Amino acid sequence: MLMSAEAYRDSLRALSPRVFVNGQQVKSVADEPLLAPGINALGVTYDFALRPEYEKRMVATQQGSGRVTNRMLHVNGSTDDLLTKLEAVRLLCRESGCAQRYLAHDALNALHQGTKRADDEHGGERHARFLAYLDDVQARDLSLGIAMTDAKGDRSKRPGQQVNRDVHVHIKERRADGIIIRGTKAIVTGAPYMHEFLVMPCRTMTPEDADFAVCCAVPVDAEGVTIVSRPAGRPGEAAARFSNTYGQSTGVVMFEDVFVPWERVFFAGETVEAGFMTTSYATHHRHSCIAARAGFGDLLIGAGALMIEANGLDTDRHAHVRDAMVDLIKIVEGFYACGVAASVYGTRDPSGAVMPETVFSNIGKLLLATQIYDMHRLAHYVSGGLIVALPGPDEDHNPETAASLSAVLAGRPDIPAEKRLDVARFMEDLTASNQGGWYSVISLHGGGSPEAMKREIWRNYPVEERSALVERLLDRGILDEGKRTSKQPGRCCETGCEPPALPARNAAE
Amino acid sequence: MLMSAEAYRDSLRALSPRVFVNGQQVKSVADEPLLAPGINALGVTYDFALRPEYEKRMVATQQGSGRVTNRMLHVNGSTDDLLTKLEAVRLLCRESGCAQRYLAHDALNALHQGTKRADDEHGGERHARFLAYLDDVQARDLSLGIAMTDAKGDRSKRPGQQVNRDVHVHIKERRADGIIIRGTKAIVTGAPYMHEFLVMPCRTMTPEDADFAVCCAVPVDAEGVTIVSRPAGRPGEAAARFSNTYGQSTGVVMFEDVFVPWERVFFAGETVEAGFMTTSYATHHRHSCIAARAGFGDLLIGAGALMIEANGLDTDRHAHVRDAMVDLIKIVEGFYACGVAASVYGTRDPSGAVMPETVFSNIGKLLLATQIYDMHRLAHYVSGGLIVALPGPDEDHNPETAASLSAVLAGRPDIPAEKRLDVARFMEDLTASNQGGWYSVISLHGGGSPEAMKREIWRNYPVEERSALVERLLDRGILDEGKRTSKQPGRCCETGCEPPALPARNAAE
Amino acid sequence: MLMSAEAYRDSLRALSPRVFVNGQQVKSVADEPLLAPGINALGVTYDFALRPEYEKRMVATQQGSGRVTNRMLHVNGSTDDLLTKLEAVRLLCRESGCAQRYLAHDALNALHQGTKRADDEHGGERHARFLAYLDDVQARDLSLGIAMTDAKGDRSKRPGQQVNRDVHVHIKERRADGIIIRGTKAIVTGAPYMHEFLVMPCRTMTPEDADFAVCCAVPVDAEGVTIVSRPAGRPGEAAARFSNTYGQSTGVVMFEDVFVPWERVFFAGETVEAGFMTTSYATHHRHSCIAARAGFGDLLIGAGALMIEANGLDTDRHAHVRDAMVDLIKIVEGFYACGVAASVYGTRDPSGAVMPETVFSNIGKLLLATQIYDMHRLAHYVSGGLIVALPGPDEDHNPETAASLSAVLAGRPDIPAEKRLDVARFMEDLTASNQGGWYSVISLHGGGSPEAMKREIWRNYPVEERSALVERLLDRGILDEGKRTSKQPGRCCETGCEPPALPARNAAE
Amino acid sequence: MLMSAEAYRDSLRALSPRVFVNGQQVKSVADEPLLAPGINALGVTYDFALRPEYEKRMVATQQGSGRVTNRMLHVNGSTDDLLTKLEAVRLLCRESGCAQRYLAHDALNALHQGTKRADDEHGGERHARFLAYLDDVQARDLSLGIAMTDAKGDRSKRPGQQVNRDVHVHIKERRADGIIIRGTKAIVTGAPYMHEFLVMPCRTMTPEDADFAVCCAVPVDAEGVTIVSRPAGRPGEAAARFSNTYGQSTGVVMFEDVFVPWERVFFAGETVEAGFMTTSYATHHRHSCIAARAGFGDLLIGAGALMIEANGLDTDRHAHVRDAMVDLIKIVEGFYACGVAASVYGTRDPSGAVMPETVFSNIGKLLLATQIYDMHRLAHYVSGGLIVALPGPDEDHNPETAASLSAVLAGRPDIPAEKRLDVARFMEDLTASNQGGWYSVISLHGGGSPEAMKREIWRNYPVEERSALVERLLDRGILDEGKRTSKQPGRCCETGCEPPALPARNAAE
Repeated sequence: MLMSAEAYRDSLRALSPRVFVNGQQVKSVADEPLLAPGINALGVTYDFALRPEYEKRMVATQQGSGRVTNRMLHVNGSTDDLLTKLEAVRLLCRESGCAQRYLAHDALNALHQGTKRADDEHGGERHARFLAYLDDVQARDLSLGIAMTDAKGDRSKRPGQQVNRDVHVHIKERRADGIIIRGTKAIVTGAPYMHEFLVMPCRTMTPEDADFAVCCAVPVDAEGVTIVSRPAGRPGEAAARFSNTYGQSTGVVMFEDVFVPWERVFFAGETVEAGFMTTSYATHHRHSCIAARAGFGDLLIGAGALMIEANGLDTDRHAHVRDAMVDLIKIVEGFYACGVAASVYGTRDPSGAVMPETVFSNIGKLLLATQIYDMHRLAHYVSGGLIVALPGPDEDHNPETAASLSAVLAGRPDIPAEKRLDVARFMEDLTASNQGGWYSVISLHGGGSPEAMKREIWRNYPVEERSALVERLLDRGILDEGKRTSKQPGRCCETGCEPPALPARNAAE
Repeated sequence: MLMSAEAYRDSLRALSPRVFVNGQQVKSVADEPLLAPGINALGVTYDFALRPEYEKRMVATQQGSGRVTNRMLHVNGSTDDLLTKLEAVRLLCRESGCAQRYLAHDALNALHQGTKRADDEHGGERHARFLAYLDDVQARDLSLGIAMTDAKGDRSKRPGQQVNRDVHVHIKERRADGIIIRGTKAIVTGAPYMHEFLVMPCRTMTPEDADFAVCCAVPVDAEGVTIVSRPAGRPGEAAARFSNTYGQSTGVVMFEDVFVPWERVFFAGETVEAGFMTTSYATHHRHSCIAARAGFGDLLIGAGALMIEANGLDTDRHAHVRDAMVDLIKIVEGFYACGVAASVYGTRDPSGAVMPETVFSNIGKLLLATQIYDMHRLAHYVSGGLIVALPGPDEDHNPETAASLSAVLAGRPDIPAEKRLDVARFMEDLTASNQGGWYSVISLHGGGSPEAMKREIWRNYPVEERSALVERLLDRGILDEGKRTSKQPGRCCETGCEPPALPARNAAE
Repeated sequence: MLMSAEAYRDSLRALSPRVFVNGQQVKSVADEPLLAPGINALGVTYDFALRPEYEKRMVATQQGSGRVTNRMLHVNGSTDDLLTKLEAVRLLCRESGCAQRYLAHDALNALHQGTKRADDEHGGERHARFLAYLDDVQARDLSLGIAMTDAKGDRSKRPGQQVNRDVHVHIKERRADGIIIRGTKAIVTGAPYMHEFLVMPCRTMTPEDADFAVCCAVPVDAEGVTIVSRPAGRPGEAAARFSNTYGQSTGVVMFEDVFVPWERVFFAGETVEAGFMTTSYATHHRHSCIAARAGFGDLLIGAGALMIEANGLDTDRHAHVRDAMVDLIKIVEGFYACGVAASVYGTRDPSGAVMPETVFSNIGKLLLATQIYDMHRLAHYVSGGLIVALPGPDEDHNPETAASLSAVLAGRPDIPAEKRLDVARFMEDLTASNQGGWYSVISLHGGGSPEAMKREIWRNYPVEERSALVERLLDRGILDEGKRTSKQPGRCCETGCEPPALPARNAAE
Repeated sequence: MLMSAEAYRDSLRALSPRVFVNGQQVKSVADEPLLAPGINALGVTYDFALRPEYEKRMVATQQGSGRVTNRMLHVNGSTDDLLTKLEAVRLLCRESGCAQRYLAHDALNALHQGTKRADDEHGGERHARFLAYLDDVQARDLSLGIAMTDAKGDRSKRPGQQVNRDVHVHIKERRADGIIIRGTKAIVTGAPYMHEFLVMPCRTMTPEDADFAVCCAVPVDAEGVTIVSRPAGRPGEAAARFSNTYGQSTGVVMFEDVFVPWERVFFAGETVEAGFMTTSYATHHRHSCIAARAGFGDLLIGAGALMIEANGLDTDRHAHVRDAMVDLIKIVEGFYACGVAASVYGTRDPSGAVMPETVFSNIGKLLLATQIYDMHRLAHYVSGGLIVALPGPDEDHNPETAASLSAVLAGRPDIPAEKRLDVARFMEDLTASNQGGWYSVISLHGGGSPEAMKREIWRNYPVEERSALVERLLDRGILDEGKRTSKQPGRCCETGCEPPALPARNAAE
């Protein structure tokens, strides 16, 4: 069943989570103005799946079950699925700033892989349990919040070493019918307006910290769950030309002795395989982030072009402005290309799920993480200083100033001042407001810090294959050195040395 | 007379400008909460001049008149003055974010040079008129708003070609006792809480546009002046840990048939010399901006170090965090060094004023204009994602959540969660709020866009001297080519060829 | 027929081009030591096609004719062909530094497209003539030199305006049996050891310059052709651990009244379609360059890893060295990803040939063009200063110093000094010798300067689609503004507005 | 006594060092063609000191002794001396590529400081001994080679832990009349054509490694000294338009049981103070490197401008070429400014010597170390691909091709092809030859790797002062929070809190 945005909003009314925003408890999430932009953004993921022109991108059929599902809940069965997901996320995020729901996709794919691996190692029914859960989630077209980033406490210490054990979510008690979990997840995207949380460990745990290697599904209104959230976007602000409509809230989620029945528990102490799942999630998520930020880039490119036009500039005559636009495009499509390459060279996991290639995924995320700041710089460059100097929208209707301002704030005479102001505020909203700050920081740190990506690149790159290549070339030369004629490449090439390990393509198609 | 901040605030009560903020007319600027952070920031420039430990930096004696004056109103008499001004601006801006008042310094210095040049060319009493004005400003310790950036209209057209002539301020009528000016300045820093405006042309005008080459002093409450302003900083926002106290407002200033008596008119049609003055202002201003943003950099460096500490990270063990801090320092001190070099190689203008070296000044400003975004990136990098994910300050006193949150949001156990949150909000305020956006855009576009600086660097750099150096070296080689012994440098070195034109240092000391 | 490297070398003996290297005429190209590294590098393209493990990458079947051919001579029939070509070029270039022969591929593909388009526009038999030529080239497994970059003369003037008309190749005379061409091509890769030249215009010509829009095939030893070439690589230099074996020569090729029969003439004045072909060549070529330089990157990565090891450094403990390696990988795989994306989003030309997507191709080339310098920097960074300070190889056998040097120049005790020196010289050769300079400059300017790529990106990017997206989002907001509830996204999403123009994928598969 | 270049060359004939170049022993260093460019470059430091127009920069009077000396041998007595030295080094290096002799300056200054500190700590006569040596060096106007960089062996181990103790120079034996030293210095600039070596430790030693903390002066032809050197520049190569005249050799210097009398021994085991001296040397040297590479930058800027002109391009019409030139200028003057700032904020050591400020010195060197690659890139960008594609100079006189080539290789018609080729070869020589590679690598690693500079910046930057500033600002806010009026800055400003620690300027003047 694919829901519409309206049905999704209604479905939230059936839940009664304990949510605080700005110090006040929220009565009805679905009707809370401070959360509306976040619900709107999620809504796009529902509505777009119902639009025929987007069907190919937004709807998928689950291999195995044959269930028809929203792409955001689909476990990939081919490299083509990966590329389609990439396009779908870009499509959603260029409409809504950040669609949030792809995190569910990333987690479901990682759980598909991780539960299979744990069963293979330890036996058990984790994978079957997960498949049943997956089918339920797809059937009900749920939105899932990914509760992963723990509060962490003192970052120089392991979870088990913290003074306050609750800075990480952990198993407090194991019972016959399920487990009791406790602790705090500090940054949960879209927390208040989800149906369920997928609790996942935020790092690989050592054996001493086995109780922290817990992964399970918890309804948002389970007893003991408290959500303390920021508003989503900039609700109610007239100047917020984009983010008063679409935004994202981040929430702290506290689990205070929450019971989870075994059929919703996927990991409970399997540190090695849970670590694998976390790493696998990171790869899926970084791959998705690439598309999300490319969609954001589309908005900056479009707004930049409109600002240039409204200012009366011409990209043919003002080469430095065109240059900045090309730089912006170069950045956006440059990191998006890494997402494409990661899709094409995706690999099939033993569980049957197809996973994006790790090195390309991490490079793409690393590029966007640092270059989001350059994107802001270039967007400001082409816009001019006006975007932070305009009188606010309350001035638009001030009878004593509105007419005069309107007359002098126009740029090109055939474009009304109103339109210029409109685009300027749109640009300010996306890049020079607290929402703009959120996009920057979440791009930098979301899905792990740049250092985490660098380590993952290093861990996965075939450096030794490259060294072996050079050693082979050097040996050839040494053999030849006696002759010094430089005419002959070494014999190695004529005989059967191994082919260099270039990535194997489309292995998963 | 050096005023205190309190005296400055009082002095504003003697004025009655027509000011609108957020669509409402302001009754008393001095008492308007929405403008308070701006007045506070200006106030620092007054109070610091009264503090003995800052006297050497903040107070100067005007050569010529012997008047003791605030450094922000001083016309430089030596390269040492330039360096001291640089240090003074950094000192003020690291306290207040942006002191705003150095624009007065930049304009007064440019007028000193420009009026002298115009008199030398055309005769007249502009310079004497300016010196009298300067003495008055210094005697009354005024704050001056620099009304320079016109609304501009269609940027592909000259002022005289615009459909609406009022998009630039211009002389509407010349009378025996003065001139009538009309038009709009779009971005005037600190407009509502200034004593007077210095109206200046924002570009070099062609002879056809002589009426736009106007420069004069106008009280903020002169008849016909309307100021439409943004709030200064983020007044009243508890989360704005810095900018609810210190901020800057930018205002649109409309001059609707304002009369200016001749003794306050410095330019009225002298397009060439007014153009020189505008360029000279740009150099002084870019030089000052370097110091302003270095002061902002000090705040980021300090806050970054506190965040690292509060997160429990150690720069010895976490090399990537130390690396980011060093990058931040490299950027800040790297562009500050250009300000120092511009001071040391300053030159004396025929008027007697000393001016920072142009190439270094423009390079320093160009470096900060683009690297402010890297500064934000690095500040975010060392801070972690928390700064945009924290619950807002209204949550701090929510009895249902405050205790739990406080327990889990601490980092290092010996640093209370409150302090960590405090620094995190400070960082968010400076880099991920609309105030952070303002710092970025104003750094990028304030004092002219990067393209303007590039053109100025190219126009002033001794490229031909460098070409001549290489040509001389090549000719020597050609003479030697016959021998091919490579033993002898060319004769040129033994005989009297001209010394290379390295910059002349300290010419103005 | 697929030749071996040895057969290729023999085949050169059947030709008698007029070649000068270092001021001396070459008697037998196949036996000239100064050209040997170039012939070796070409040879790799032949031998690898005969190796079973590379067959999938190196051998293709021509759609249409069914001819089995070397991948370097194949006209692409699918996006998969594009990706396979990319992998093939990387494979060749990581073995030989630069395989050179992919230029033939790029030109043949462009001619396939261009001749078809010209026939469609003007009628005629260009395309049939080309297909016959293609089959002949594939049948004989030829190496083709691409004679494109004219000497150009004064770059501020068009070809027809030059004082000396011969700075561009042009049609001097049209005859019944063919044309007479004249002029100079300044940078022809591998000129001396090719079988034939494909003469192509280096820019789009205006109608006045129709005689310069000439494209034809000319044997290297046709009457009137003179080749003045640099040596290939660094032949005979013992320190040149790579480029005494593999290198590339660039030659000036002068055409002094050379007759070309009509069956070898593909364009003779069709300025519009010849311009299209030139642009199309640029796209194919930039796509190939991406793979070539990724192969070069593989060599740097491998050599860097070996240097680190030989110096006794450990990437776990010396994080800054690991960081530099990751940066190097990020650059190489980052631009390679653009090549992959350009393949996946390739499009089918009306001629049936499949062409890489333009924006991704140009971004990838632009990224490598500027980042090749960063690759050198990073390679030097991880290697240490030794690579330019080592005594030369003549010292290795000096009985008075060799033993002492060998004892002290070792790094890690289990790696002999000889091996360390060997890798150090390899690194110096690739990055700090005249060969290293060649790789830099050819990466920067080969296939057009960065400015050319920027213009092509701008010309091809769907900026208007992005603007339309933002305009639609803004309009929605305006409709909503009255409510200020921020709850509802605009109606647009519920109704049938057009899907955004994301690239159409795999259209050509 | 100030020598001329000719007298310097003659003075070398009085020495008889054991020197090998390219495997052959050198009979007379002064007459060896392979070393001539190095001797020429040193010669410039002598001849320029005799030219009246350079006297102010090139000649200094030693405080203390009153000895008139070459600036390259002068111990600084004021911040003005530092700035003058900076200008002098730039002047020399823009003439000779790299003057080499400033290393002597850097070492003498460090020894002045270090010997004083060691005496203050341990008593003794090191400083008096050094002053006598200094006077002797100045009196004889010597060239000193700085023998600092040890061969190092396995970089993961300390000197005393190496399998072969000789990979570092150390004291083998202490005798009544002096010491016996042994070991290898791997990279000694200009080794063969120096008068003496100053042996210095390359790192801070631990107490166990006290025998490695040795510093002394040794004549180049002392018994037991062997120099294995590379050629200087590219002697005898006609294409090397600059470096066949000026270049630098780097040599391995082996000390095999060399006796040094006590009056030439400055450190023999004082690990702490020797470490201080090494660090101090690094600061002086990095400061000098800034000027050296700025001089190199002058050559690139000049050559770039000439290439643009010869190619017929116009920086007004071709904005991207002008842009690249401005970038090049920005880099060069940007890091030079750090040298200026380091001079102005120099500090006086207890020995009386004045030392450049550490943070600015290290930032300047760090900027040039990495940006030298960008300088090459930009130089190539403005030059076009021709510089690596030109036929070699042997072709210039080939009667069969010279005339034709000359006709077609001209760019702008009023600039002869010969001149264009000349500049192109000059550019190739400096940036795309092995000499260009040397400039890159030596800029990156000379004076310590970038990582060493980063650590030094971090160690010396007043981070805690910045943290204290922010803490003070935060505390103020907290006091104010009750009011939420945002009107008042904290009381702190009205009372006597400490002034922020901005650098103290001109303390040493």
